[in-house]
Amino acid sequence: MPFGATPVPGSSRGDLVVIGGAEDKLGKRAVLADFVRRAGGEQARIAVVPTASSLGDEIVEVYAAVFAKLGAAEVYGVRPQDRAEAFDPALVAELDRATGVFMTGGNQLKLGTVVAGTPFGDALHDAHRRGVTVGGTSAGASIQSSHMVAFGPGGATAKQRMTQVAAGLGLLADCVVDQHFAQRNRYGRLLMIVSQSPQLLGIGVDEDTAAVVTTDEDGRQRLEVVGRGVVTLLDGSTMVTDAHAAKEHRPILASGVVLHALPAGSHFDLTDRTLLPAPTVGDPAEADELAVANRDLSKLARDIAADDASPSVLRRRVARRSRGARP
Amino acid sequence: MPFGATPVPGSSRGDLVVIGGAEDKLGKRAVLADFVRRAGGEQARIAVVPTASSLGDEIVEVYAAVFAKLGAAEVYGVRPQDRAEAFDPALVAELDRATGVFMTGGNQLKLGTVVAGTPFGDALHDAHRRGVTVGGTSAGASIQSSHMVAFGPGGATAKQRMTQVAAGLGLLADCVVDQHFAQRNRYGRLLMIVSQSPQLLGIGVDEDTAAVVTTDEDGRQRLEVVGRGVVTLLDGSTMVTDAHAAKEHRPILASGVVLHALPAGSHFDLTDRTLLPAPTVGDPAEADELAVANRDLSKLARDIAADDASPSVLRRRVARRSRGARP
Repeated sequence: MPFGATPVPGSSRGDLVVIGGAEDKLGKRAVLADFVRRAGGEQARIAVVPTASSLGDEIVEVYAAVFAKLGAAEVYGVRPQDRAEAFDPALVAELDRATGVFMTGGNQLKLGTVVAGTPFGDALHDAHRRGVTVGGTSAGASIQSSHMVAFGPGGATAKQRMTQVAAGLGLLADCVVDQHFAQRNRYGRLLMIVSQSPQLLGIGVDEDTAAVVTTDEDGRQRLEVVGRGVVTLLDGSTMVTDAHAAKEHRPILASGVVLHALPAGSHFDLTDRTLLPAPTVGDPAEADELAVANRDLSKLARDIAADDASPSVLRRRVARRSRGARP
Repeated sequence: MPFGATPVPGSSRGDLVVIGGAEDKLGKRAVLADFVRRAGGEQARIAVVPTASSLGDEIVEVYAAVFAKLGAAEVYGVRPQDRAEAFDPALVAELDRATGVFMTGGNQLKLGTVVAGTPFGDALHDAHRRGVTVGGTSAGASIQSSHMVAFGPGGATAKQRMTQVAAGLGLLADCVVDQHFAQRNRYGRLLMIVSQSPQLLGIGVDEDTAAVVTTDEDGRQRLEVVGRGVVTLLDGSTMVTDAHAAKEHRPILASGVVLHALPAGSHFDLTDRTLLPAPTVGDPAEADELAVANRDLSKLARDIAADDASPSVLRRRVARRSRGARP
C-alpha cells in the first residue's frame, strides 16, 4: 500500500519486504530501491535494526549510505542488544517516527532471542499494523515468519532432523521463510520443515531477491517478487509424508508438494496459494503487425458495408495485408 | 515382474532399473543386488554395455566382479563403439541370451549417438519387451527416458537455456531422467526441462539410489525406490510457466509443479502420477499391545455371550487389560 494512506482497520498493514540476503548495494540496487520506495521514498525515515549482526554501527552506516543514495530522508540505527534493552521504553519509542524498519542479516536466533516477545517486538508488530514498511535481509527475513529456521545444513534432500525450527516474530503468519535459498541449496531443509508441518507455506528466497508481501483492504495477502533470483514456494496442503516416522538422518517421504518457482514480476495470492496473472506485456513487433491487420480489416469492413468490395479489391486488400504482416 | 514368467502380450515387459550413479559396489550393494535379483538371480546372464564410458574392459571387469559376487551366473561385455558396430548383426545378437542388460555411466550423449536408432538400440527395446531387466547408472540411466538431459550446469534455480535436451532410447516414455540429482544439485535443470515440456515427468535420481519401473499386466507402470537417497519427481501437468518467453539465462516462472520426494520403499503409480500406499509396517510394541487387548476383548465377548460377566469379573478384566497394555 502507498505510504501515508489513512489507516483503516484491516487495510493499514505495511508491506513486508523479505530479502534472501546479499542484496545488491552498489549496482542497480533493485531490491533496496523497492524497499525505500515502499517506506515512503523521499519522505522515508528508516530505522535500521542491526541486532542480528555481530557488527553494529558499521552495518548501520552501510545501510545509511545506501538508503540515503536511494533518496530516503532519514536513516538511523536502533539496536537492542539483549532482552533488557528490548524492554527499554526509550529505545522502543525510537520506532515511533519510522516509516520503514529494516532488519539486517546476521544470526536470526540472536534476533529472535533478543526481540521476540518484548515491547520492542510488539512495537514492530504495531508499526506493521499502522502501515510502516518492515523489511529485512537474511536473518532479518527469517525472523518475519511465524516459524523460523534456526540453523541446519544445505542439500537438496529432506532428511529427518537436519534442521531446527524456532519461533519467529510472526509478522507473516503460517509460513516458514528460508533465505540464500538457491545459493546455499536449501531445498532439503525447507522441504523437511514443510513435511513436518504441512500447514506452513515454505518460502525460499534467493539472494538479491525479495518476496514483498502486501495486504489488501479485505485482508488478503499477495506476494510479489523483486530482484535477480526466484522465490520458491513449497505448499504441503495436500501432501503425503512419513515425517513422523522417518529415521534420524534418513530421507523423508514428501509426496504431492506443490512447488512454485517465481522470478521477478510474479504475483502470487498467499490466501488462495495460487499464481496471479502478471500484467500482460506483449511483443512490440507482434503488436504492430496486429494493429496494421486490424486497420486494414476495418477498412475492408467499411468497404463491404459500402458495398464496393469487388473481387479484385478484396484480392488487392489481402495481398496488402500479407505484405504488412510479413515485412 | 519375476523373471521367467510366460511372456503375455502387454505383461511381459522387463523391469527398468534407473540408477542415479555412484551406486555402492563394496558395501551393502542394495541397488545392484536388486538389479541382479530382477535379472534372474542365480540364473542371471548379464550383458554389460560400457559404450558411454571412456573405459571399456576395465569397467566391464568391475561390474563382472560385483555381479558375480551377487550371484549372477554369467556376466559379459557388449560394446558397440560407433554406429557401424551398432548395426553389426553378430554384436547385436549378443543381447539375445541376456536376462539382464546393464548400461554403465559415462557420457550419455555418446551412448545416444552410438546406439539410438540402430539395430542394437532396437534389440534393447526387444529385450525389454520380452521380459529382460534393463538397468543403467548415470549415463545409463539418462538414456532410458524418452527425453534425455545431454548436459547443463547444476543449481537450484531453473534458468532459460541452462541445459540441453536430446532424444533418449525411450524405454521409459514421456519423461526425462536426471541423475546424481541431490549430489550435483540438479533441481534447476530438471525444472527448466519440465517447464519447457510440461507433458514430461521429471525424474531426478540420487546417487546410490534406483527408480525401478515395473509394468503391470494391464500396462500400468509403477515406480519403486531402492537405495540410499530419494527419487524426486516433478509433475508439471497443471503448471503455469513463462518458459516460452523467459529471457536467456534468466530464471523461469514455474508455478504449480507437483513435487514428490520418494525415499527407499516408496511406490508410485506412474500412470496416475500418484503415491501408492506402502506396505504397512507397524511399531512392533504397539502391535503386541493391540494383540493382548484383542485377546482379552475376545474372552470378554465370549464371557458376555455365556452370560457370566458379573461387574466384578468385568472390573478384573479391565484391570488386567490395563496392565497388559502398559507393561
